[in-house]
Amino acid sequence: MTLGKKTGETEGLQMNEENLWCLKEDGYDPGLHKHYEGLFTQGNGYMHVRGSFEEGCSDAPQDEEYLRFPDNVTLEKPRHPKSKQGTFIPGIVARHPLLKEEIVNLPYYLGLEFLSAGERMDMDRCRISGYQRWLDLRDGSLHRSVIWETAEGMKLHCTFTRYLSMADTHLCIQQVQLEVLSGEGSLEVKATLRADVRTNGMNHFARIVPSADSEGSLSLETITEEGNQIFMLSALEASEAIVWHTENTRMTAALRGKCRLRTGDRLAVSKLTTVTTDRDMEEGTVRDRAFTHLGHARNLGLQQLYNRHAAKWKSKWQHADIRIKGDDAAQINVRASLYHLIRSNAEQDARVAICAKGYAGEAYFGRYFWDTEINLLPFFMHTNPQAARNLLLFRYNTLEGARRNARNYGYRGARYAWESSLSGEEQCANWQYADHEIHITADIVYALYHYVNATGDDEFLERYGIDILVETARYWCDRVDWNREGYGELLGVMGPDEYLPFTRNNAFTNRMVKFSLEQTVASLDSLQSGKSDSFAAAAERLGLRPDERELFRHTAEKLRLPYDSQMEIVPQSDDFTGYADVEFDSLWTDRSRPFGHFISQERNYRSKALKQADVLELMLLFPQEFPREQLEAAYAYYEPITTHDSSLSVAVHGIVASWLNHKEEAEAFLQRVMAIDFSLEKKGAAEGIHIANCGGLWQLIVYGFAGLASAMWSDTIKLQPRLPEGWEELSFQIVWRGEHYRITVNSGAYEVQKLNGGEAVAGTTI
Amino acid sequence: MTLGKKTGETEGLQMNEENLWCLKEDGYDPGLHKHYEGLFTQGNGYMHVRGSFEEGCSDAPQDEEYLRFPDNVTLEKPRHPKSKQGTFIPGIVARHPLLKEEIVNLPYYLGLEFLSAGERMDMDRCRISGYQRWLDLRDGSLHRSVIWETAEGMKLHCTFTRYLSMADTHLCIQQVQLEVLSGEGSLEVKATLRADVRTNGMNHFARIVPSADSEGSLSLETITEEGNQIFMLSALEASEAIVWHTENTRMTAALRGKCRLRTGDRLAVSKLTTVTTDRDMEEGTVRDRAFTHLGHARNLGLQQLYNRHAAKWKSKWQHADIRIKGDDAAQINVRASLYHLIRSNAEQDARVAICAKGYAGEAYFGRYFWDTEINLLPFFMHTNPQAARNLLLFRYNTLEGARRNARNYGYRGARYAWESSLSGEEQCANWQYADHEIHITADIVYALYHYVNATGDDEFLERYGIDILVETARYWCDRVDWNREGYGELLGVMGPDEYLPFTRNNAFTNRMVKFSLEQTVASLDSLQSGKSDSFAAAAERLGLRPDERELFRHTAEKLRLPYDSQMEIVPQSDDFTGYADVEFDSLWTDRSRPFGHFISQERNYRSKALKQADVLELMLLFPQEFPREQLEAAYAYYEPITTHDSSLSVAVHGIVASWLNHKEEAEAFLQRVMAIDFSLEKKGAAEGIHIANCGGLWQLIVYGFAGLASAMWSDTIKLQPRLPEGWEELSFQIVWRGEHYRITVNSGAYEVQKLNGGEAVAGTTI
Repeated sequence: MTLGKKTGETEGLQMNEENLWCLKEDGYDPGLHKHYEGLFTQGNGYMHVRGSFEEGCSDAPQDEEYLRFPDNVTLEKPRHPKSKQGTFIPGIVARHPLLKEEIVNLPYYLGLEFLSAGERMDMDRCRISGYQRWLDLRDGSLHRSVIWETAEGMKLHCTFTRYLSMADTHLCIQQVQLEVLSGEGSLEVKATLRADVRTNGMNHFARIVPSADSEGSLSLETITEEGNQIFMLSALEASEAIVWHTENTRMTAALRGKCRLRTGDRLAVSKLTTVTTDRDMEEGTVRDRAFTHLGHARNLGLQQLYNRHAAKWKSKWQHADIRIKGDDAAQINVRASLYHLIRSNAEQDARVAICAKGYAGEAYFGRYFWDTEINLLPFFMHTNPQAARNLLLFRYNTLEGARRNARNYGYRGARYAWESSLSGEEQCANWQYADHEIHITADIVYALYHYVNATGDDEFLERYGIDILVETARYWCDRVDWNREGYGELLGVMGPDEYLPFTRNNAFTNRMVKFSLEQTVASLDSLQSGKSDSFAAAAERLGLRPDERELFRHTAEKLRLPYDSQMEIVPQSDDFTGYADVEFDSLWTDRSRPFGHFISQERNYRSKALKQADVLELMLLFPQEFPREQLEAAYAYYEPITTHDSSLSVAVHGIVASWLNHKEEAEAFLQRVMAIDFSLEKKGAAEGIHIANCGGLWQLIVYGFAGLASAMWSDTIKLQPRLPEGWEELSFQIVWRGEHYRITVNSGAYEVQKLNGGEAVAGTTI
Repeated sequence: MTLGKKTGETEGLQMNEENLWCLKEDGYDPGLHKHYEGLFTQGNGYMHVRGSFEEGCSDAPQDEEYLRFPDNVTLEKPRHPKSKQGTFIPGIVARHPLLKEEIVNLPYYLGLEFLSAGERMDMDRCRISGYQRWLDLRDGSLHRSVIWETAEGMKLHCTFTRYLSMADTHLCIQQVQLEVLSGEGSLEVKATLRADVRTNGMNHFARIVPSADSEGSLSLETITEEGNQIFMLSALEASEAIVWHTENTRMTAALRGKCRLRTGDRLAVSKLTTVTTDRDMEEGTVRDRAFTHLGHARNLGLQQLYNRHAAKWKSKWQHADIRIKGDDAAQINVRASLYHLIRSNAEQDARVAICAKGYAGEAYFGRYFWDTEINLLPFFMHTNPQAARNLLLFRYNTLEGARRNARNYGYRGARYAWESSLSGEEQCANWQYADHEIHITADIVYALYHYVNATGDDEFLERYGIDILVETARYWCDRVDWNREGYGELLGVMGPDEYLPFTRNNAFTNRMVKFSLEQTVASLDSLQSGKSDSFAAAAERLGLRPDERELFRHTAEKLRLPYDSQMEIVPQSDDFTGYADVEFDSLWTDRSRPFGHFISQERNYRSKALKQADVLELMLLFPQEFPREQLEAAYAYYEPITTHDSSLSVAVHGIVASWLNHKEEAEAFLQRVMAIDFSLEKKGAAEGIHIANCGGLWQLIVYGFAGLASAMWSDTIKLQPRLPEGWEELSFQIVWRGEHYRITVNSGAYEVQKLNGGEAVAGTTI
């Protein structure tokens, strides 16, 4: 078997083109180890692996056992080992005694170690030079190149390449080549599958069965406490004759072998690993399926495997790419964000969604937040509508969990979890969020309509959406308190601004709930008059009483909004003015760190210091309802008291700044959005990717700079572009009601070109 | 050695007199096991032991290991084993990973088991009849009498007696007698010291060294995780010749021996146990001191030991007793409450205070709350001023912890912990209480003045109090927010009513803080003009800046009160009217259970459903500031929306009802107060004694029914009695500014008799 070669596609690239597609790490810095592990996470929807070194990292055991507490996210001081590996399969979760359900960090299957006369190749302990690493965003392949001068006197050029196949999603392909530049000696290779892995300090493995044979085959069967089975199977091949010896331990399947090398020799080793679980929607045992997948892969060969994989990525980029001329730094960062969005999406599997860290770390425990609907969905619905549909279908699939949540609180209907896992039941271990940040339930309805309007997929609404609508409307009617003037109120509410946990009539929440109830009534009306069969079926299925629709209508009509069009400043909530003013300058002495580190939660909770955009988010979602003066005033009032301690905040501010034509500020926000995951100072990707911010970056470009009118409110593509300074041309594709368009904006004009023979509409930039 | 006999004092009692002093359990009910363990807790200030059987309880292992969570107290569903033993020494605490510092449940030293032909005497498994158990409140001795018919055919009358010496506080005396009524056989005795004990599911013992010898001596040395040493040493004596065999295990020191008995024989066994710890304020090792104490006890002999103990109790009852003629049920219950108050008080040790469960259970983790100052202190300051002084000295001794609390929140000065343990640092694991229930810091200052006014102990104020005053005033000045009208506000506050966690300007809290600041200024003024040396010393010690007093004065003056004398209803807080009304009848379908079980915390937190008296507590503490109409209106408005889910609520309502001459309601509240620990239906003592409610009962009788004017506001003894129906006479002693008085109230008149030759003041009841 020979190593696969990349196709012409990736060969002979212009250096510049490579800079715009390859995310590079220049020089190894142990302090950035964890950051790059997050940033270089690879994935294919089915599984995800952080960008750890094949040989691991010294002084960073992966099985540290400790009890992690459900602290306030701002206040928590999580552990910071030098390295944290991460192997995640969406859907494989287990219970943590304090943190509830968390995605399990699975056994590490990338293990490949090299030893020269007992000296283990180690980035921190050996004589290593010429370090280069890069993630090729075009195909999601990760590359490393180093020179290793062994103590024995060999000088080896080592190159590592790996990818998780986008076409054969159970498969990971690794290739390592060691070229002897000078010297000679024996070299040992050790390949492992390691289960000495903890998730947030917790062991979730009930049974581990390592196995290996001298034919170069390794396997590790893991059964979690919840009973999930994970089977990992690897096949090793080497260009030199190597005799493999089994070196299994209780936790690890391992093979070790050696060969002798001289100057000019090249040793190539490949490791093909297939991973199967009992959650796969396939017939057969995990073991049988793993062997089948591996056999299939070996039959195809490395070249063909790569071709299939690369073609998949190419197709994804065709729809998702955003091209920016004139700003190479933005170009590569935007593409890296899009890469993580593409990778995180589980494609056909609507039993899971996209977790808050994009399956690139243990933070947030692999859970699903409102980010999915509000921050991520627009990207997917305009680049991959099927993926967007699956994300909403996930909410339909977890409606039963949402019903249980409502019941647990003593309400009828369905109440979506602030933090959802597989069942939809509440997983948030901090009650102030779980109990009071209720807007998630309305956000899902907003997203549902956004999707339907953007795609025209009315069938989704009729078949699935109506259940969500009716059940959540029932919850809202129970959740509303009626004041003595006959108005409905939402008390004890945490809005998107999580620094005020307990407000009266949060403007964002109340508007979203009103929308949700209004749309429920409208959809019931429309279904009844249009498709009375569907309506009758839904009414029966949901036990819809005749008077309920009237209750929904009444509640929607009478639900208080704490603002009107006459107000100069739209208040965040009815009680907002009563909170205390904060002297930011005296408190927040280091603005490179979150404001939350400089104030106790107690004080924060009674102060006008916002964690994130709240009223601005409202105005972003309902742009037609707020005159420009109100938007301008809200931006001027709230931005200075917003700490942006949440990664969801900056992109929203950027869009609003762009709408208001505050170009410099919008560009500054763009820089901040990009810094969240990419800044080496912040090491923002250490705990995973801020995937909502990746979606926010797409929105900042598409809704902000290109000025696309939201499909929620516009039937047709309308643009009002305002490009950042220096951007010569911005172009991207969108899907709009089933049709594909290419949008191209440059400094003087914009063009909307319908693809597949559609008409092009031309206009002028402002 | 012969068994000790009680002195004449307790012999030849009239049956009725015994009923008024002996708390009885008639007939054994396994379902009430845990309740009686709490209710029959014995103690002497130094140590406390729950009323468990000497032989233990089948099916209730004491070493169940589990992780208890810091749940909301109302929502928590704690474990309910059939039996929970408890051995507590105030000051021996350890860290729980989730619950912070908790008092350690120490090894069980009462163990005495009896076996007949292998059949272990067991209340649930043997043929037992004639069960009687009673706690004699006069001397705190616990008695049990049963007939045991063994499978082998012996009929044994078994009597168990024990007490913790009030005079020799390291000592526990146990006496068991078995009289053979018929049959014969061999009988085995097993004596144990058992360390297989967990506290709230957690092991806190790092080292256990059991030891025993055939001379009838047993010892158990325990070292906790925190490094505390506890040494238990027992000496066995029996009336028959018994050869003792060692039966130690890793966790248990045990001796076993047997004798043969025939009809008419009596076997008497005594076990004297001394307990010492490294926290004792005595010289020498724990081991040496335990042997010294035990030797001393054995030299004295059982009779003299008992006499010393009984004399101490007699002296305590002389000051503390409340005599009620005409209501025997109230009489015994009141005495039982007084018994627990007396027992819980650590006498001379101001390193500890009285924990919320009166050291009678693991609930509330042995911590100190505002209960101490507001609910318990009046009883102690009028019956045992030295004990009251020690309770306040405890707060002085933990001032450094309070300073750390303030610093942790970013404030200057001192902030007392909502839940305190030894150091004064915050131990409450639920942030909504720890962060927002801030009134504790002012409550302590209120109590300080209450104590000084009641006792005339001005020296305490000058020597200790001034530091508390200045440091807490500094905290308040930092905690206050200033609104745009120039008034100080306290935002984000949980008042005594813990069902509204996040209010604006809670009336109770703001009034207490204003008082606290005003008194600080007044005391500084007075100290400076009176004892300028003391003032100068304090000013230097505290780094008091010249402008600080002006800041205290200004803050006191400008601190907003959410009410004035014109208002019909004093609002609980500025935002109170905005909370939602609750339809109690539809929600609270079983009023025998707490309201909190019928509503989610989320909904509760936004509803007008009070956990406990809040405005009424304010009016109780500042009676002169509220005209009767406001008191009447507050009672009428708040009582129906108060759930009394807190045991602190009912007594306050009883006092106010009494003041308002709502006699039937006051009497109903009296019944509810007594039911809290004594009702067999509620099994209220299972987790420990509601010691604050015991103090509340004293206040209900003294402030309510006798109508004593608070020493906070009255220089002289003023009474306004309103006795409950059927009470023919109420009499009790109080200490008032150093003088002892006997107060006697009967239906027609009252009498205040100065003791030790003082004048008597007579008046007429209303």
